[in-house]
Amino acid sequence: VLGLEVVLASGEVVRTGRRTVKGVAGYDLTRLFVGSEGTLGVITEATLMLRPAAQQPHTMAALFASTQEAAAAVSAVVAAGHVPSLLEIMDRTSVRAANAYLRSDLPEDAAAMLIAQSDTGGDAGRAEVAAYAALAQEAGATLVIEADDQAEADALLAARRCVLMALEGLGTTMIDDVCVPRSRLADLMTGCEAIAAHHGLTIGVLGHAGDGNMHPTVVFDASDEDQARRAQISFEEIMALGLELGGTITGEHGVGVLKREWLAKEVGPVALRLHRDVKRALDPNGILNPGKVFT
Amino acid sequence: VLGLEVVLASGEVVRTGRRTVKGVAGYDLTRLFVGSEGTLGVITEATLMLRPAAQQPHTMAALFASTQEAAAAVSAVVAAGHVPSLLEIMDRTSVRAANAYLRSDLPEDAAAMLIAQSDTGGDAGRAEVAAYAALAQEAGATLVIEADDQAEADALLAARRCVLMALEGLGTTMIDDVCVPRSRLADLMTGCEAIAAHHGLTIGVLGHAGDGNMHPTVVFDASDEDQARRAQISFEEIMALGLELGGTITGEHGVGVLKREWLAKEVGPVALRLHRDVKRALDPNGILNPGKVFT
Repeated sequence: VLGLEVVLASGEVVRTGRRTVKGVAGYDLTRLFVGSEGTLGVITEATLMLRPAAQQPHTMAALFASTQEAAAAVSAVVAAGHVPSLLEIMDRTSVRAANAYLRSDLPEDAAAMLIAQSDTGGDAGRAEVAAYAALAQEAGATLVIEADDQAEADALLAARRCVLMALEGLGTTMIDDVCVPRSRLADLMTGCEAIAAHHGLTIGVLGHAGDGNMHPTVVFDASDEDQARRAQISFEEIMALGLELGGTITGEHGVGVLKREWLAKEVGPVALRLHRDVKRALDPNGILNPGKVFT
Repeated sequence: VLGLEVVLASGEVVRTGRRTVKGVAGYDLTRLFVGSEGTLGVITEATLMLRPAAQQPHTMAALFASTQEAAAAVSAVVAAGHVPSLLEIMDRTSVRAANAYLRSDLPEDAAAMLIAQSDTGGDAGRAEVAAYAALAQEAGATLVIEADDQAEADALLAARRCVLMALEGLGTTMIDDVCVPRSRLADLMTGCEAIAAHHGLTIGVLGHAGDGNMHPTVVFDASDEDQARRAQISFEEIMALGLELGGTITGEHGVGVLKREWLAKEVGPVALRLHRDVKRALDPNGILNPGKVFT
């Protein structure tokens, strides 16, 4: 986001940022508004930077007997300096749900599946994906598939893309959005498995492994009061685990109302007061999306 | 910059941001402090994201009979979707100053020289640089040099790196820092030439062409009162031109005291009031770097 047009609490219209690639004139008001969830102004226009179109991607998938090995493969890829254009993970629960939803036959005996892409294109892209495959193998993959064509790649990605809908077919869902340093991904996944076992619940663990941004999804029967209570506790325990591992309660979804108390825990009292000071400066009467992000 | 430790006006210490690749919990206080030039807090620690080490670069240079053709080559490279790791421009004044400073023999008959690098590495990097060279040729380059080895590449870059020091050897300098949309680079360069001619001054035009971020450098004799006056006017005319072309008064150097009045012109009265509101909220007694960025 290079620049914004924003309607302020006063009703005035302001333009922030610029159309240039670089620029450091004044405070970064653009970033202040981005992600403020409507609490500082109403964004009515955004100027976006364009990136070169991605090249035809190369795709691989790898299966692992444990989520820890899958997470170790992610760490190995990142540590080797690769920047995959896509690096996603699905645990067994997610693969099973996807199979049921798509009537597909991805192997359900593995504990986790990684899907990785490079959009470098050409021979360099092929070499990149071969390197991911080798690192997955070293981390203990039981099976590595390099997609031969776009159709095979699409089939793998279709599974990942449908998981949330597929899990919703199994019950009511609460979708977490914790993001941890990528070196702690294995700990996060193991921790989610322990939380699921402890509360006797289904938790599908899936997400953007390459970013450390996971969406552990608690599935429960909302008509069962005790299950709903355990689901809520699990949802919060996952956020607590994310913070404990040096992460954040929200990698991309935001705070809203649901995570207001957790924002306070994550940023601490001084930063929270700064939030309030900024809010008061820009919206002295509290008319913009009141009650969201913090109280 | 992923996160910061900042001492606030109150003396309290706050941590902003996080260690994760992604994160959207609360306002982006990190970006609010970055580039605030010490007016909102004292930054005492910064957590930086690491990128994979660059590959051995491939390098080319191209000479042009006009700065417009050189700028057109830049536009062509960008428009074709290339992302050079380095794309620098030097006009004839800059090349001459570098030659005098380094006792080197870069051709001084050309109006402008482009230097471009790709750090993609390997055959892909070589192909990238060959593509830049072809686009430079199409844009009218009189000579294109693809560096055979690191020594040749280093010699080209040494010229670019020394220009500001070299120009300082010719007189007192005032270094502009305008950044324009890359499609307006030719207009900026032509405009700087016209300003130099109109005021009878030497202005070395050089900069990060690939970003549209130029450092037109006015050279003058500070003991000559009239020249100093014309230099100041030229310096400001270049900023006005940058704004007229949809750019910014500062791509990377910041505002400080020198460009305070120009910040007001660039951002306009509503955004300037927002700056003051934020400043008052974070530094109610105005004790942090007073008088900088805006009054």
